[in-house]
Amino acid sequence: MAVNLPLPVPASLKPVAGIALGHAEAGVRKANRKDLLVMKLAPTATVAGVFTTNRFCAAPVQVCKAHLEALRISESPIRALVINTGNANAGTGEAGLVNANATCAALAELLGCEAAQILPFSTGVILEPLPVDRIKAGLPQAVGNLQEDNWYNAAESIMTTDTQPKAASRTVTINGVTITLTGISKGAGMIKPNMATMLGFMATDAKVAQPVLEHMVKEAADKSFNCITIDGDTSTNDSFMLVATGAAALEVSDIDSPEYAALLAAVTGLSQELSQMIVRDGEGATKFITITVEDGATVEECRKIAYSIGHSPLVKTAFFASDPNLGRILAAIGYAGVDDLDVSRLNLYLDDVWVAKNGGRNPDYREEDGQRVMKQSEITVRVKLARGEAAATIWTCDLSHDYVSINADYRS
Amino acid sequence: MAVNLPLPVPASLKPVAGIALGHAEAGVRKANRKDLLVMKLAPTATVAGVFTTNRFCAAPVQVCKAHLEALRISESPIRALVINTGNANAGTGEAGLVNANATCAALAELLGCEAAQILPFSTGVILEPLPVDRIKAGLPQAVGNLQEDNWYNAAESIMTTDTQPKAASRTVTINGVTITLTGISKGAGMIKPNMATMLGFMATDAKVAQPVLEHMVKEAADKSFNCITIDGDTSTNDSFMLVATGAAALEVSDIDSPEYAALLAAVTGLSQELSQMIVRDGEGATKFITITVEDGATVEECRKIAYSIGHSPLVKTAFFASDPNLGRILAAIGYAGVDDLDVSRLNLYLDDVWVAKNGGRNPDYREEDGQRVMKQSEITVRVKLARGEAAATIWTCDLSHDYVSINADYRS
Repeated sequence: MAVNLPLPVPASLKPVAGIALGHAEAGVRKANRKDLLVMKLAPTATVAGVFTTNRFCAAPVQVCKAHLEALRISESPIRALVINTGNANAGTGEAGLVNANATCAALAELLGCEAAQILPFSTGVILEPLPVDRIKAGLPQAVGNLQEDNWYNAAESIMTTDTQPKAASRTVTINGVTITLTGISKGAGMIKPNMATMLGFMATDAKVAQPVLEHMVKEAADKSFNCITIDGDTSTNDSFMLVATGAAALEVSDIDSPEYAALLAAVTGLSQELSQMIVRDGEGATKFITITVEDGATVEECRKIAYSIGHSPLVKTAFFASDPNLGRILAAIGYAGVDDLDVSRLNLYLDDVWVAKNGGRNPDYREEDGQRVMKQSEITVRVKLARGEAAATIWTCDLSHDYVSINADYRS
Repeated sequence: MAVNLPLPVPASLKPVAGIALGHAEAGVRKANRKDLLVMKLAPTATVAGVFTTNRFCAAPVQVCKAHLEALRISESPIRALVINTGNANAGTGEAGLVNANATCAALAELLGCEAAQILPFSTGVILEPLPVDRIKAGLPQAVGNLQEDNWYNAAESIMTTDTQPKAASRTVTINGVTITLTGISKGAGMIKPNMATMLGFMATDAKVAQPVLEHMVKEAADKSFNCITIDGDTSTNDSFMLVATGAAALEVSDIDSPEYAALLAAVTGLSQELSQMIVRDGEGATKFITITVEDGATVEECRKIAYSIGHSPLVKTAFFASDPNLGRILAAIGYAGVDDLDVSRLNLYLDDVWVAKNGGRNPDYREEDGQRVMKQSEITVRVKLARGEAAATIWTCDLSHDYVSINADYRS
């Protein structure tokens, strides 16, 4: 059901010097599937991330934040990330924190470091106790097959309702040094900014100072993982982590440097690719929709309108049906909460078709033109507000019978 | 597919002295269906309403507002309401206003009054020109069968994707005078406060001063029509109108009077009944869900959390599946936007089952108890925030395959 989602070719996923990956079948929820991943980092690596804004943020997210905060004082670097699927360890109260910490302690013992040097991640069902014993029992297997050339298995290990692994690589040459970036992501439902049931991990061999990396991960996420929505549900576990191993001879220590701009462009580009893969694999998705709102007074109002369109079940079912029932888009714009919006100046385009002109139906609009675009698997909705210079783009998908089937059956 | 939705018995719908109803088959969109309704009011009647907050508010809504505003100066009373289905006359620009005014003028000529004494309403597809000639041609038929005992046909005349007409009556005795209230409503999708593709019309034979009626309609709507959601889509046309014909010997002229309180209670009760009928007939609905959020700091934050739960596609599909995947409710609470929410003090109940205690799974919660409640057709979700004294209740339904089918096929 995925929309033009490229299946990653294992050989195309370039190893990143300084990060090794090991997977296991721990049986967290189901037997005989990869559900545990360890990512071991060189001691020179820096790590930064962005996390869910959900108030019910999961226990592992709380532990991650605490360990990254502790880093500022201790200067003991993060040495590994550990990710399990099958259980989100969210809505689990104090016991959840105990279990997340126990996972870190068990891996730390295997790797010979402190528990605070481990970052834990979980994804899966909420409100059920984490089977921490199975995870601890699976860790030796994961540590046993740690290797740099293991990104494809890593991508498979973090899948839940994803129909296929999501991974991509690219290289970029900065100051004559060729830098590698490889990333993986997962998620197909409960997807909305800021972050969702989505996990993303990206590594580069550049050397990036900690505060610079923290700045970079936020900038990249704001133009990628924070611009996608499937169902408007922001999950309790979303995280996007960026690792810079420092194995290559490129150092980025200043956010105003040309090296920073070049690396940020590559990180953002790969982040967009990985985040769009999540939308392309959206639960039940049959269409990939780009929504761009232009000429707004602020970026915030452009995003509000874009999300209002992207979340409307009526708009999403019309896309599913290839039905140019485009008045539903106007209705979604109208209730987006931009109170002083003058709709009589608004224009709406569907790809190259000018649908609404100055707030009403464009006299030249023909139903067959709208129909032609609606039948495509990739569609761009463009709204022009005539209020200013700001713009925003988000990516989403349609709402199909299969979305209902997948989410009505997920636990059974 | 409707959930415990009572089919109105024509004989149970009590005429309201001072208001006559006439319907027609005007062929606005489809032939051979009632799609035009005229409600003619006694000259003593007062009328007040609440309207959609959508910025793309439809042409008839704009005309209604203008005519009600003109009333303040001219003192010529509103003499009739005219409602068509099949076309919303929204997103239609200047031509839409011309057509709405032309409808009023045509009816005014038939009734011997001014166009400004008519209130027009439309519901149906957005962004298509109103076939005003067909409506004008149908008006004589509607005027020809005007009668007080015609509420059932009236309810049928305003249906779109509704599976059945929605109407109810009640009587109340105030100061020894028996007052009648009868109302009709329509709507099954694009439903969210404030107002949706929803129309509601209620009449009483009490005599209510204009400013008092305006106050009353807002108070009643805030506890009924503004507390329902099906899909979170606020339509361009929603209106709820309250008519007081003044035919009975009860006069309400002061919002601090006991008569006001008694009539408001009856109007609110009937409004809740009519608005809940819309949810019970929600597109594809198989469950009727009441969501109550208690012990909040403000009513606004309680409503935010209630709507966040009520709009979550993941929560709604879990209800459809009778799957006690209740972590999804916690996730929806967490992303509702109440930034200082302390989830460790939060409790969640499903009917009588205590699911989450102090932010985590209640140790005494058993899956079979959650399963038992989830299988019911009527379910109450109760969230206790431990932040204050405020509370809010909304009503919604689940998200099923049929919702997708209905909205993917609506125009075809």
